[in-house]
Amino acid sequence: MAKRYLSLCSLDHALSVMKSSFSAPQRTEQVPIMESVGRIVATPVYAKYSVPEVPLSAMDGIAVRSRDTIGASETTPVTIESFARVNTGNIVPPEFDAVIMIEDTWEAGDRFQIRKAAAPGQHVRPAGEDIREGRLILPRGHLVRAFDTGAMATYGITNIEARVVRIGIIPTGSELVPPGVRPKPGQVVESNTIMAQVFLGLIGAKCIRYPIVRDEPDLIAETLRTAVNENDLVIISAGSSAGTRDFTASVISSLGELLFHGVAVKPGKPVMLGKIQEKPVLGLPGYPLAAQTALREFAAPLLESWGFPPAPKYPVRVRLAQAVTSDLGFDEFVPVFVGRIGTGLWGTPFIRGPVVQTATVKANGYTHIPAAVEGYEAGTELEVLLTTDPGSIERTLILTGTLDPALEELANLVHDEGLFIHASNTGNLAGMLALSRQTCHAALLSLPSGSLLSEYQALNRHIPPGDTIFVHIATIGHGIASRDGFGPDDITKVRFINTKSESPARVILDALLSFRGIDVSRVNGYLNEVSGPTAVAFAIRNGSADAGICTAGIAESHGLKFVPIASEDYELVIRRDIPSDPRLMALIMLIRSPAYRTLLEKAGGYITDRTGVLRCLSEDSVLIKCPDGTEPS
Amino acid sequence: MAKRYLSLCSLDHALSVMKSSFSAPQRTEQVPIMESVGRIVATPVYAKYSVPEVPLSAMDGIAVRSRDTIGASETTPVTIESFARVNTGNIVPPEFDAVIMIEDTWEAGDRFQIRKAAAPGQHVRPAGEDIREGRLILPRGHLVRAFDTGAMATYGITNIEARVVRIGIIPTGSELVPPGVRPKPGQVVESNTIMAQVFLGLIGAKCIRYPIVRDEPDLIAETLRTAVNENDLVIISAGSSAGTRDFTASVISSLGELLFHGVAVKPGKPVMLGKIQEKPVLGLPGYPLAAQTALREFAAPLLESWGFPPAPKYPVRVRLAQAVTSDLGFDEFVPVFVGRIGTGLWGTPFIRGPVVQTATVKANGYTHIPAAVEGYEAGTELEVLLTTDPGSIERTLILTGTLDPALEELANLVHDEGLFIHASNTGNLAGMLALSRQTCHAALLSLPSGSLLSEYQALNRHIPPGDTIFVHIATIGHGIASRDGFGPDDITKVRFINTKSESPARVILDALLSFRGIDVSRVNGYLNEVSGPTAVAFAIRNGSADAGICTAGIAESHGLKFVPIASEDYELVIRRDIPSDPRLMALIMLIRSPAYRTLLEKAGGYITDRTGVLRCLSEDSVLIKCPDGTEPS
Repeated sequence: MAKRYLSLCSLDHALSVMKSSFSAPQRTEQVPIMESVGRIVATPVYAKYSVPEVPLSAMDGIAVRSRDTIGASETTPVTIESFARVNTGNIVPPEFDAVIMIEDTWEAGDRFQIRKAAAPGQHVRPAGEDIREGRLILPRGHLVRAFDTGAMATYGITNIEARVVRIGIIPTGSELVPPGVRPKPGQVVESNTIMAQVFLGLIGAKCIRYPIVRDEPDLIAETLRTAVNENDLVIISAGSSAGTRDFTASVISSLGELLFHGVAVKPGKPVMLGKIQEKPVLGLPGYPLAAQTALREFAAPLLESWGFPPAPKYPVRVRLAQAVTSDLGFDEFVPVFVGRIGTGLWGTPFIRGPVVQTATVKANGYTHIPAAVEGYEAGTELEVLLTTDPGSIERTLILTGTLDPALEELANLVHDEGLFIHASNTGNLAGMLALSRQTCHAALLSLPSGSLLSEYQALNRHIPPGDTIFVHIATIGHGIASRDGFGPDDITKVRFINTKSESPARVILDALLSFRGIDVSRVNGYLNEVSGPTAVAFAIRNGSADAGICTAGIAESHGLKFVPIASEDYELVIRRDIPSDPRLMALIMLIRSPAYRTLLEKAGGYITDRTGVLRCLSEDSVLIKCPDGTEPS
Repeated sequence: MAKRYLSLCSLDHALSVMKSSFSAPQRTEQVPIMESVGRIVATPVYAKYSVPEVPLSAMDGIAVRSRDTIGASETTPVTIESFARVNTGNIVPPEFDAVIMIEDTWEAGDRFQIRKAAAPGQHVRPAGEDIREGRLILPRGHLVRAFDTGAMATYGITNIEARVVRIGIIPTGSELVPPGVRPKPGQVVESNTIMAQVFLGLIGAKCIRYPIVRDEPDLIAETLRTAVNENDLVIISAGSSAGTRDFTASVISSLGELLFHGVAVKPGKPVMLGKIQEKPVLGLPGYPLAAQTALREFAAPLLESWGFPPAPKYPVRVRLAQAVTSDLGFDEFVPVFVGRIGTGLWGTPFIRGPVVQTATVKANGYTHIPAAVEGYEAGTELEVLLTTDPGSIERTLILTGTLDPALEELANLVHDEGLFIHASNTGNLAGMLALSRQTCHAALLSLPSGSLLSEYQALNRHIPPGDTIFVHIATIGHGIASRDGFGPDDITKVRFINTKSESPARVILDALLSFRGIDVSRVNGYLNEVSGPTAVAFAIRNGSADAGICTAGIAESHGLKFVPIASEDYELVIRRDIPSDPRLMALIMLIRSPAYRTLLEKAGGYITDRTGVLRCLSEDSVLIKCPDGTEPS
């Protein structure tokens, strides 16, 4: 095999090369103060005049000369003949140097008596108390905040000279279609440059996105030349791997110098940096998560080294809910979902690789695993940088187990209670393990109807059944989906597609086939396992299989025929031995609400007559009271 | 005295009334994904199609039927006759279910030999691996982040339906002039509504600012009626105190209901909330810091209760560098400057009251002192919410002592080294105290020239002189400033203005007058003390005094005549017994740079021939080597 990169340098080395190879562009622009938040001051901002410009009264009262008040006391009142009446904020005339509050005076005809001497400057806001003319308001390099704009307006400033950097972003790839165009099979929407423009725009860059360039070296070179001329930094998206159609590196070399190509970082290994006309050209890898690494770990630090604001970082210490492995020698960046269970923060890593863009949408943070570390055990405490408002963590319920679309309707409903759901599709067994380890708020189980207790005991050896409450979400019909209405007896004749061997539906089918004496090795595709019923429906719809195990609802929503085999109870399981969490109570109330039942019925394929029923297994499936004290319906 | 507020309610009560009195507006708008960052999803976002839509190869190789590969091994190769050549990302034709990497194949004419069986699904990215058609991408209530935009583009989304709230902002006050107009004495620039618009815009509000309304009840009522009709929330700025020209409360009452007026919160006591046509009307106090409290503690939580994002908060634990007092029964919000000294974060509170808008510009955070707390001792650990990038704390040098404009030039210069200066004007004594307590990086002292050691020993009993290094910033000439060239002998004839009794210039003058036998009680205004030479120059310029103690530079920059009396050494003092900080070293190098000397000479009034000279007092003012090892110039 050919070596895919001439040299794979370390992240530290790459960053040090990057930061030392370019000088900061000196571009600035005038920005109205109303639009200056988040911008960096390029020219120091000085007050145009003093505030206040003349001494003002800080009270309602009379302005006096302090020396006229000397000797005044309770027993020796002094009558003030020379004074001016002032309200708070009024000018104190130059001949006076103190203000006496009106409640400390006694009016005597057109004069005032006082019984206490006034100190010089008493209740007078001196000229320049807030700021003096010509004094520094914001130094060069200051990052403007919302409340700074009010101060600038007060001190006479209407515009600032702010730093700006122009970034040209070039999307390359013959397989790309612009956003909004539905990709044909094999095509991909050009989304990485959108992400780059939005991300870099937030740290103060002015980005120009060039039209998509096909994978032809001459076209790439032409656009790159233009972009280098027009900008301070050029980002060229994709074409950065070592495939036959990856021209970015050779084009950069032909126009300038390639500083590095290939960094020991994951995702993002194919990242590259070039120098053309003394300007940096950053090559982004094509996979979305790899492109994110390049933007966050290369483009943002380069801008920061040029004096632009760092991307905001909210570090939190979390414990890992599951182990994560890492390649020795690679700096890895792993998306993590952080949630609070009890008093602790727990992080669940997303480990499905750089292709799965949904990971960063579902994650609310990421962690950096240094090159010298091979991974972390479950329970290890480490730092996660949040990508979301830290407060939202406190409003998020973590559910682990077997997922069903019934949950998506719930995720939308709970938001009306100010809550979020984070659900991981791990299967029943891992769901119960998470519940016992307290790395989730509730487990989601899909169990054969009518056998809760025995199934539960098979799943779990840590929490006694009496310490749990089952909340029935819905009854889900399982069976065989196909275009042609195949039943269990037909499956030896078709291309079958299966779900994972630990999935409840699979367990039922295995039992059924064994009962009928059908040898699974005779079933074409029986070993071809996909992640769940939706994946099965898709495989049938796109023609890669003829039939497979599916739920009634999902088969229906994909326009497939359905032959029922068995039904399962989809249950939310919570712990009775842990103090009840108001968020969980809100979730249970929503499951029990007519609104949720209506949504499930509209979605189709759910039996909802027991939705919301609460059961406690230790009492032999006897119904218990609802958390609000009413009898379950 | 009249009671200024009918009732002063607690902050908790006010917030609970506010949150329970209004229902969230249901306003939404279409937003292109490129502009969606920071917005809240109003309608759940679902994938328009699956990604990928068909199975794709994850490798360069051949697509095969896995069942054709059964039995292949090193000793029993299998020849594959039915296959398709695929590159990474190519479609895997429906008849195949696995991909074998090209390096694991042996080409044999137009066929391939393999030596290892392929598992079903091997190196195939199944359809819907990333996301499936119709599945939830972002739930209702999700706060859109930069990288979410890329995912949405990938999944076929070009616009989202986002929540929006319309806020009308009304500035009132006959003393107001619009931003950009120079206020006459007694006038104020209308800046609070600018601040409100910018601040609320950042959390997703669409704000309309109405023209300034004079303090006339009919005009205020007319604008308020219009604003309530056009918006979901109205903010009316000022007119909220209990003065004779404060009409906001009565106008709200006449159009609807006043829910509260006056809250036990500082700054911000006059804040009020009304309800007109079921919509909230928030009355902002007029002082800038009080208006900030009302925006941050009332407007932002109201929007948050309506499902808008919270203003970002970065809490840090700090120790107080100085004590802070608080009124029992009042929730107080105090601007704080947070800096790192050694391994600890220290917070310096700004305690100059709600008028001083520069405090929030100079502060990088604030702390909330609960109503039940009377204050905190120096050294107390408490939480500060940062208003700036936490990273900038690590790049900030904290200097405490006697300030001089010479420092402003340095503040602009240090930024080129990526550093910030935070300087507190506390005087020599407090500067040395801070240095001994390690609540600053360096002290700034202004000492009579030629008497460093004795002056130092008078100031400080904690750090032996040999444990400090003095860095000479400049020599500053002190004397008497006036319009008419008055000297020491004239001061009994004029209106004098003095600086604080502990200020070095004042000490010199006191000694001089005593030496000449002049009784200070004969000097008109000698007891009238202002904060420093700039305040003196201002007082003379605006006519409230005829002469005063000033520096040569400041007198010159204010166009005043100057009669010298003595000169002082302006010194940066650092500790030798604390490991040297690279930031301090950078600062010292800048003080020693020709660029700084040039700036000082341009500013005028500084003697720079010893600028940058380092001295260690224990060696009897013998010069020591520079930190870089060279001899001082």
